[in-house]
Amino acid sequence: MAKKVSITVIRRLPKYHRYLNELEAKGIDRVSSQDLSVLTGFTASQIRQDFNNFGGFGQQGYGYNVRDLKMNIEKIMGYNNPKKTVMVGVGKLGQAIARYQRFDDAGMELVGLFDRNKNNIGKVIQGIEVQSMDNFEKFLQENDIQIGIITASGDSAQELTDKFVNSGIKGIWNFATVDLNVPDDVYVEDVRLMDSLLTLSYFVVKGQNENK
Amino acid sequence: MAKKVSITVIRRLPKYHRYLNELEAKGIDRVSSQDLSVLTGFTASQIRQDFNNFGGFGQQGYGYNVRDLKMNIEKIMGYNNPKKTVMVGVGKLGQAIARYQRFDDAGMELVGLFDRNKNNIGKVIQGIEVQSMDNFEKFLQENDIQIGIITASGDSAQELTDKFVNSGIKGIWNFATVDLNVPDDVYVEDVRLMDSLLTLSYFVVKGQNENK
Repeated sequence: MAKKVSITVIRRLPKYHRYLNELEAKGIDRVSSQDLSVLTGFTASQIRQDFNNFGGFGQQGYGYNVRDLKMNIEKIMGYNNPKKTVMVGVGKLGQAIARYQRFDDAGMELVGLFDRNKNNIGKVIQGIEVQSMDNFEKFLQENDIQIGIITASGDSAQELTDKFVNSGIKGIWNFATVDLNVPDDVYVEDVRLMDSLLTLSYFVVKGQNENK
Repeated sequence: MAKKVSITVIRRLPKYHRYLNELEAKGIDRVSSQDLSVLTGFTASQIRQDFNNFGGFGQQGYGYNVRDLKMNIEKIMGYNNPKKTVMVGVGKLGQAIARYQRFDDAGMELVGLFDRNKNNIGKVIQGIEVQSMDNFEKFLQENDIQIGIITASGDSAQELTDKFVNSGIKGIWNFATVDLNVPDDVYVEDVRLMDSLLTLSYFVVKGQNENK
């Protein structure tokens, strides 16, 4: 990839991928930027510009081949690179996330589950036994883990992050409501459920129209 | 509120609130925009501008009173307006979300749970019995529901949305991986777990530094 691609473009790719998947499932093999505009709500010119970031893929007068475009996006997003993943915090939310069926679609392989709560240790979720935190650092070192998922409570999140970082992890999916400090070469993707809820609350109370 | 506030400002408010909560818990009663800048990573001038949207709250040379600022944000975000909420889709993810302890903090009261799966109907979660979809529309009509949560699968999400909208709902917290069509006066807050995972995958594969 020659040039740097902005994060706003990257964040639109999963949406394109979602619609291309649907088109492929319907047996449609060709799509124009105008068609994609109707589906996604982005302008056709924005869509062409987005794909140009990655060297195009389209042909004048033909549009895009659905399957090729989908596969190119998958390649760009790293679907096909298997990434070993460990989760810490296997309470209610952690268990739901661990059972989330679509890890495979993102090329992630959940290989370890950890918890500090004795009631959770020993449970088997998706064929993986929840281990005690005593084994955490050793496991990270021995298994070449690339992604950490933090579904533990906020008070331990930075400490866990430091241990992940020391083990050479490349990315963290963070559900704890804290801002994590990481070195520049580690990427943190935050899922802020509380911030999301509060934004919803705001618009429900104030009325959506006031803020359009 | 006299002027329109942009959604980017609204989305920063929960973060301010989070840090003000922490400061208050530590017994700190006064904070400058500079202090808040260090904590949040936003610039001091951005912070002052954000609060000016709501008429200020700060005093030259003093800064902000932590408790007042926090309470003003809570008022703006509608924490204190109770909002009756119904969830549809009480599988693994739905159950985890239903047990999410912080609904109260956002002024949301979960009053109804619905599922089309017979194995889930009759379960009691957080003191609420999961009902059959047969009762769904009647329940919405009779209980003045303001917020709907969709943790059901994508194929039913638009149909559920239409029923919520017909009942006069004001906002939807959507976990389904589809783009919902709603009238202008209904706000949809999407939680896109798959999009989030794919973005993480991208940065882990490509390396974070390449895209800074």
